[in-house]
Amino acid sequence: MITSLQNPSVKNVVKLSKARERMEQQRFVIEGARELSLALEGGYEVVELYVCRELFATTRYPEVLTAFTEKAITEVSHEVFRKMVYRENSDGVVALARPKEHGLGNLKLSQSPFVIILEAVEKPGNLGAVLRTADAAGVDAVVVCDPRTDLYNPNVVRSSIGTLFTVQTARCRSVEALAWLRENGIASYAAELQAAEWYHDVDFTGPSAIVMGTEAEGLTDFWIDNATKRIKIPMRGEIDSLNVSVSTAVITFEAMRQRGY
Amino acid sequence: MITSLQNPSVKNVVKLSKARERMEQQRFVIEGARELSLALEGGYEVVELYVCRELFATTRYPEVLTAFTEKAITEVSHEVFRKMVYRENSDGVVALARPKEHGLGNLKLSQSPFVIILEAVEKPGNLGAVLRTADAAGVDAVVVCDPRTDLYNPNVVRSSIGTLFTVQTARCRSVEALAWLRENGIASYAAELQAAEWYHDVDFTGPSAIVMGTEAEGLTDFWIDNATKRIKIPMRGEIDSLNVSVSTAVITFEAMRQRGY
Repeated sequence: MITSLQNPSVKNVVKLSKARERMEQQRFVIEGARELSLALEGGYEVVELYVCRELFATTRYPEVLTAFTEKAITEVSHEVFRKMVYRENSDGVVALARPKEHGLGNLKLSQSPFVIILEAVEKPGNLGAVLRTADAAGVDAVVVCDPRTDLYNPNVVRSSIGTLFTVQTARCRSVEALAWLRENGIASYAAELQAAEWYHDVDFTGPSAIVMGTEAEGLTDFWIDNATKRIKIPMRGEIDSLNVSVSTAVITFEAMRQRGY
Repeated sequence: MITSLQNPSVKNVVKLSKARERMEQQRFVIEGARELSLALEGGYEVVELYVCRELFATTRYPEVLTAFTEKAITEVSHEVFRKMVYRENSDGVVALARPKEHGLGNLKLSQSPFVIILEAVEKPGNLGAVLRTADAAGVDAVVVCDPRTDLYNPNVVRSSIGTLFTVQTARCRSVEALAWLRENGIASYAAELQAAEWYHDVDFTGPSAIVMGTEAEGLTDFWIDNATKRIKIPMRGEIDSLNVSVSTAVITFEAMRQRGY
């Protein structure tokens, strides 16, 4: 059992909160039993696994450790665990896993796909919330274009509640995403305040992608100029913006309603 | 100009981050020029106003100070301002205002009202996000039942971007809200994972209220047993919950779609 805060493994987990370290080491941190179980389901390779038995006794997902031999589990003290994680109410599990590729070419699409495209997403919490919506709505994939946050930021893992690991996710430049949409015959709908058409007047039953910009700046001209159509959500109040995860959900669930889900 | 961090006014602004202080003093903090302008629009009484001119030079809402005489404005140094606020990228305005009553009796309803009811909301960020959605969708009112957070928590002000001040908001016990709905002939739709009916199969064109529980626990039996109907959002993925602000938005915008907005 690791009980020393000076242990190099402990220090390394803390280090991996930095994007540069994650890139160099090709490792990222998964905190939480539920998140770990979704990572295993998503086929992620777990390289190191730390468990604080005292906290793990409270988990609602005790079966997650059955996938591991005893040798694969390193026990840590409560104090060491607290140093490793930054979430309160943690349930005693921290794993290091290897990132995936996230190329567009790896995405498997259904016959009439529905895809969410996020341009230049910046806040990890927003990306996580969109992934959670994508999971619930059963979309084909989330494509993150020119992101300003790392997919494996601990806040993405956390706010997605692990759906980062099970929702198909690609990362690429906007030009690549547009080419990919066209190759696959997928219409793109750019969400934009100045658009002429209401989102609920669009027929989403064919192969469709919605393209969402950042809250502060909206979409770039690239998407506004190249999208199949521009769409907007009615804004009837004092402020002229919704949270990006909220607007993504409103349009996505309208599409699912039209599709009869 | 206040330049001393020891100034009692400065210390008092910091103190007001505590709910107990807000209640005792009947004062709360508004940070940001946009938020202040919405508070003025919402008829809030501003009692003290602190401005850091250096930061205010960057605001996108410079007209907000025209409502005040020079005497009403207390200038503060950059250092003092930083001590008063906890947001980054602040635009140099902090005001103290007097809370409102938020009784159910004060709500003015349209002919066919749509109301959002939140039971036991706990996270200020969720309440703020729901208020932002309520503003955009143009709902009649948000009713917060048995809340576990204070309406005037600085994070509610912040995450609502000031729509807390312009969206009609009541605070009461659940039994009072139910009686009020019945008196006003408003049907209540309780969002619940085990419900039989899809939210989009419900007719929201008549007087309607949706009732949303907490993410962790859902609605209490009180609402599940007493609501006109129980409704659910399709969940097709690995996790069985959406963020409460996301599910509120999905149902609310479906109602607005049905109403032809």
